Amino acid sequence: MFALTNFEKAFRPTSVAVIGASDDATRISGRALHYLIRAGYRGAIYPVNNRRETVQGLRAYPSLADVPETPDIALIALPSRLLEGALTDCAEHGVGAAIIYAAGFAETGSDGGTLQDLLAAIAAAGNIRLFGPNCLGLLHTDSGFAGTFSSAFDKALPTPGGAAIVSQSGAYGGHLAYLCEKRGIGVGYWASTGNEAGTDVADCIHWLALQDDVSVILAYAEGIRDGDTFRAALQAAHDHRKPVVFMKVGQSAAGATAAQSHTASLAGADAVFDGLCAQYGVYRARTTQEQVDVAYAAARGRFPKGRNLGIITVSGGFGVQLCDAAERGGLDVTPLAEPGRAKLRALNPMGSDNNPCDTTAGWLNDMSLITKTFDVMYSDGGYDSIVGSFTMLPDSPTYGEEIRKAIGAGTREFLDRPTALCMEARPEVVRAYESDGFLVFDDSERAVTALGALAYFAEHFDTPIARRHRTRTARYDLGSDPLSEHAAQQILADAGIPFPRSTVVTHPDDVAKAAADIGFPLVMKIVSPDIAHKTEIGGVILDVENEAQAAAAYSTLLERADAAVPGARIEGVFVGAMCPKGVETIVGVTNDPVFGPTVMFGLGGVHAELFRDIAFRVGELDHAEAVNLVREIKGHPLLAGFRGAAPSDVDALGDLLVAVSRFAVTHADQLDSLDLNPVLVLEEGRGALALDALITVRTAP
Amino acid sequence: MFALTNFEKAFRPTSVAVIGASDDATRISGRALHYLIRAGYRGAIYPVNNRRETVQGLRAYPSLADVPETPDIALIALPSRLLEGALTDCAEHGVGAAIIYAAGFAETGSDGGTLQDLLAAIAAAGNIRLFGPNCLGLLHTDSGFAGTFSSAFDKALPTPGGAAIVSQSGAYGGHLAYLCEKRGIGVGYWASTGNEAGTDVADCIHWLALQDDVSVILAYAEGIRDGDTFRAALQAAHDHRKPVVFMKVGQSAAGATAAQSHTASLAGADAVFDGLCAQYGVYRARTTQEQVDVAYAAARGRFPKGRNLGIITVSGGFGVQLCDAAERGGLDVTPLAEPGRAKLRALNPMGSDNNPCDTTAGWLNDMSLITKTFDVMYSDGGYDSIVGSFTMLPDSPTYGEEIRKAIGAGTREFLDRPTALCMEARPEVVRAYESDGFLVFDDSERAVTALGALAYFAEHFDTPIARRHRTRTARYDLGSDPLSEHAAQQILADAGIPFPRSTVVTHPDDVAKAAADIGFPLVMKIVSPDIAHKTEIGGVILDVENEAQAAAAYSTLLERADAAVPGARIEGVFVGAMCPKGVETIVGVTNDPVFGPTVMFGLGGVHAELFRDIAFRVGELDHAEAVNLVREIKGHPLLAGFRGAAPSDVDALGDLLVAVSRFAVTHADQLDSLDLNPVLVLEEGRGALALDALITVRTAP
Repeated sequence: MFALTNFEKAFRPTSVAVIGASDDATRISGRALHYLIRAGYRGAIYPVNNRRETVQGLRAYPSLADVPETPDIALIALPSRLLEGALTDCAEHGVGAAIIYAAGFAETGSDGGTLQDLLAAIAAAGNIRLFGPNCLGLLHTDSGFAGTFSSAFDKALPTPGGAAIVSQSGAYGGHLAYLCEKRGIGVGYWASTGNEAGTDVADCIHWLALQDDVSVILAYAEGIRDGDTFRAALQAAHDHRKPVVFMKVGQSAAGATAAQSHTASLAGADAVFDGLCAQYGVYRARTTQEQVDVAYAAARGRFPKGRNLGIITVSGGFGVQLCDAAERGGLDVTPLAEPGRAKLRALNPMGSDNNPCDTTAGWLNDMSLITKTFDVMYSDGGYDSIVGSFTMLPDSPTYGEEIRKAIGAGTREFLDRPTALCMEARPEVVRAYESDGFLVFDDSERAVTALGALAYFAEHFDTPIARRHRTRTARYDLGSDPLSEHAAQQILADAGIPFPRSTVVTHPDDVAKAAADIGFPLVMKIVSPDIAHKTEIGGVILDVENEAQAAAAYSTLLERADAAVPGARIEGVFVGAMCPKGVETIVGVTNDPVFGPTVMFGLGGVHAELFRDIAFRVGELDHAEAVNLVREIKGHPLLAGFRGAAPSDVDALGDLLVAVSRFAVTHADQLDSLDLNPVLVLEEGRGALALDALITVRTAP
Repeated sequence: MFALTNFEKAFRPTSVAVIGASDDATRISGRALHYLIRAGYRGAIYPVNNRRETVQGLRAYPSLADVPETPDIALIALPSRLLEGALTDCAEHGVGAAIIYAAGFAETGSDGGTLQDLLAAIAAAGNIRLFGPNCLGLLHTDSGFAGTFSSAFDKALPTPGGAAIVSQSGAYGGHLAYLCEKRGIGVGYWASTGNEAGTDVADCIHWLALQDDVSVILAYAEGIRDGDTFRAALQAAHDHRKPVVFMKVGQSAAGATAAQSHTASLAGADAVFDGLCAQYGVYRARTTQEQVDVAYAAARGRFPKGRNLGIITVSGGFGVQLCDAAERGGLDVTPLAEPGRAKLRALNPMGSDNNPCDTTAGWLNDMSLITKTFDVMYSDGGYDSIVGSFTMLPDSPTYGEEIRKAIGAGTREFLDRPTALCMEARPEVVRAYESDGFLVFDDSERAVTALGALAYFAEHFDTPIARRHRTRTARYDLGSDPLSEHAAQQILADAGIPFPRSTVVTHPDDVAKAAADIGFPLVMKIVSPDIAHKTEIGGVILDVENEAQAAAAYSTLLERADAAVPGARIEGVFVGAMCPKGVETIVGVTNDPVFGPTVMFGLGGVHAELFRDIAFRVGELDHAEAVNLVREIKGHPLLAGFRGAAPSDVDALGDLLVAVSRFAVTHADQLDSLDLNPVLVLEEGRGALALDALITVRTAP
């Protein structure tokens, strides 16, 4: 368990000291105090200011020592030069948490970095939950605790609710709060972590995941500092079924370093982050709009059981458009089966009797039709979620209220399934539908994206995450010199990674045993330092199928060598398993500076790179997660039996990936990177083979 | 030139007859009349109703014959059984245009289809510009002509402006009109084409493209009826620099048919439509939101000269996010060069001195900083467009007005370049910025997508479209039987498509001449019906480099054949050009039932199919368009010199594609499909070779 000390005191303090509190509510040093007073903060407020008797109408205290109780948190609105003293004071007085707003630290260069490190050390020693520096603070809506000077709360604190916002960037976090308010998403917790000297986004996610009153976490980060903390946080969110909707921009330092090794140069740390999201069921939003849309839907806590989407529209064109959107959003639009189709036909002969169901607008004369249509689609169709497209109808002064009742009646029995409605309507109409339990969107694509995200969360919540560090393979000293391919193969074979068997035979009597060990069919080759182009002299014999052929091939190879290059030094005859047909893939490991050993998978050849079609997973994988990794690449159908080919042995490939991940985790301290290129995936039941191995050992840091 | 007869009378009539006009404004047959009256339509209105003296306060006429002048257009609000008579009346009286609203025609089956065909024939014979049936009509805002009963105009007609909306679906078209109004996009023309018995979306686009007061066309279609008409319309839009923003959903009948031939089964008609858009510079929107965003931006008629985007933000995180969005939107975020950087540093030491430029919020104390920042980015940076991200600041009661003036001052000299601002602000604030010439978005991704679309339009407007049918190749009678590969190769080689040269030699004296004709290096193979596995008996000799080697190879092959299979019938020795190294690609042609010969291009192997990475162009290509086609596939970098390889001969590949397209257009009446698989693209300067050819002849329809 990671330490989440004093988080409670930071987010829900019973008393607050504002150190350096200004009487001027428009100044940064006065704004948090102003917000606290205006929001009716329910705890005690102690402005600390040695130059005034009162600050913004509250009694001021000359120093922390003068405050009549030990405050849970100190908001430190002081310039840099006074911070060390103030934080030391906090530590000495046993203050549980502190927020430092001032900028000009690590983000500006080394001087500020030194002071930041000093502050972090003081906080750590004093057991202070420190936020910042260079942050906009935090707030807890319910208790009116506004430990922030963000101008996003200039007009008011957020409407309370189940969403929690955690952002490295205060500006982005403020923007998210604004968008949530506009969208009717209540926000219970808000935090800006800034330079993260003491508390980072991961810590906040972790603690928030444990709070019962949090229903969805919106997170923003530019980079992740500590892979273990981060993974623990995502694990906690998973275990507590808290959807995390993440916006990560840019590239972490991890990417730059990892890009130096061959396999990682295929992508960058950003793709590793994608892998991590897939692994922990975090939804990674690409745009802010998507982040807010998904959070809006997830905040309801109602998730579909599967990906089967029902579509109801008042015009066929919208139905087709929603089908297109469903394909992009990973949802299935399966047809309605016959009993249900017959019911729809009987109900509404002018409408369509299938999914998507185009009702036309005829039901405006008989609202029970739309009620029954929803009922048939849910009860007969069994769809996991339904999206309905009603354009401007719900906003109609004539029909609006009736429509809402009719749709409500048709979905009342199915409140466990999310129903999204697309409409253009006044905010009060939208709010009325929302209070009935519907999700409302003004764009069909966005509605379907959000439903797809809900299905994604549901799938992940119901699937355990592979625990880390369960299994260790035997440990080798990989040394500090580059490993030869042969040495790498031997070590990896010991670690359970399959390579084709082979040996070099130097006497005709040994051929049969070698063949028996390796198994037919064989490839046999002359081994001689004096013969460069074996094929040209007939020095390679393929498809040796039995013992007699093997014996004959041995003689033939020696004869041909002698005939072609008389006097050539002959070291023996290579006997190896014929490389069977299979799909070429690449398996790699990079040792990410943030996330540690990270397994990469892609198709072989240039295509993984050309189409950027690779995927990542962090740490040790179990077999299920390894198979997920394989299925994640776009080229996956090639392994599933493409164009009538036999399916490949994805099961064995999964075993290989598990073995690779275990080896990598066991040797995390020694390994820089590992490449198996290609890994040949044979027909189902026949295994997967690494044909080539390269291990790069970590050089001293 | 395609016939656009009487369009003027349809969209801007000087007189309107409403046949079957109802006194009840809430009924379909009364609604259009109601809209006309309410909108203050400036022409004459003649309700035709033989049961009333007046309709909605206007004098009614018993029949069209009683109307005192020949109306430009008749709105026919009658049930099906009365339509034939009414339209015949219109034809006899010389009415220029007619709209039939009634549903229940081709969309319901054959009976309706028959009536629809009859109406189309009456209209064609009578030179009537017919809209519908099963449509919601059309309108022209400026003249108050509302020939529609769409409930989208229940409250009011659109605000006039340069946008034109054309939609097969009346519901979708109405929705678009609503969204345009909400977004502040003025709409001048609106049309719903319904079953398109007389007038289709393409006709409308064509005519609208010729109108000076149209600045952007929003189109919606579920399928395209006539490829030639459609292409002529897009050509007109291109030539008149009218941006077309298209939403096409679903699959046309074209797709279903075309999917039967091998190459087209790789995708479907939808990808052909994509190709057509790329060819004519039409922007295909994937979502309605995107369609409206792009139309909003394009309506200004201000297009960037290039793809170089400047970014100005008040917080670094937004800058990174905008960079991510720019990459997705196809825009370049190039760094600012030094003189400009120095200026930014001097201006604002706390901000960043590069692109993206994070100004921080310091300039709120000195607005001239933001003015100068814009000026430096445009004048020193030379960016083709700028996106600025200002979150909620422009909405601030304190700063808002000043900010608008400051940004206005910084961009005043650069009004020829589009400046997009991202903000969350009240509608009146947004309108103020818009009236200053800015594009305003509340989402950064959407802003950048729209700027990318503007760059796309600009590029296409400045590039001529390859004219069709300029060049014909020699015509062959392809017969009705399947063509042998040999026959196909001969015909295609004559048409200018390069194949590797080869011949079969039967006498040693002929070897030298064959070699000289073909050129070294050669591959030579024994040709014998009795030798199945040539390689195993040494019956294939590669890399024959000169005349002596060729002569020796000839003897060797005969000797080896004789030794291995005594008495084998020898037909001679195959002499062919060694297949040089190259990139394998696929070139195909399908004869699309709507668009005619359509050239497909993709990479070879399974990857084109696996990654759906193929692209299409319709009709005859010129070299520039052929190269565009090649560059459009995601795998294109493989041809550009991937991983240090030499670049491929895209120029020669372009020639091959041009030859294929000409051959296909010349044989459009005979050809079903054509596959060159693979086409090997050699190193730059060395050409491209088709290795295999398959022609499928069109069977009698």
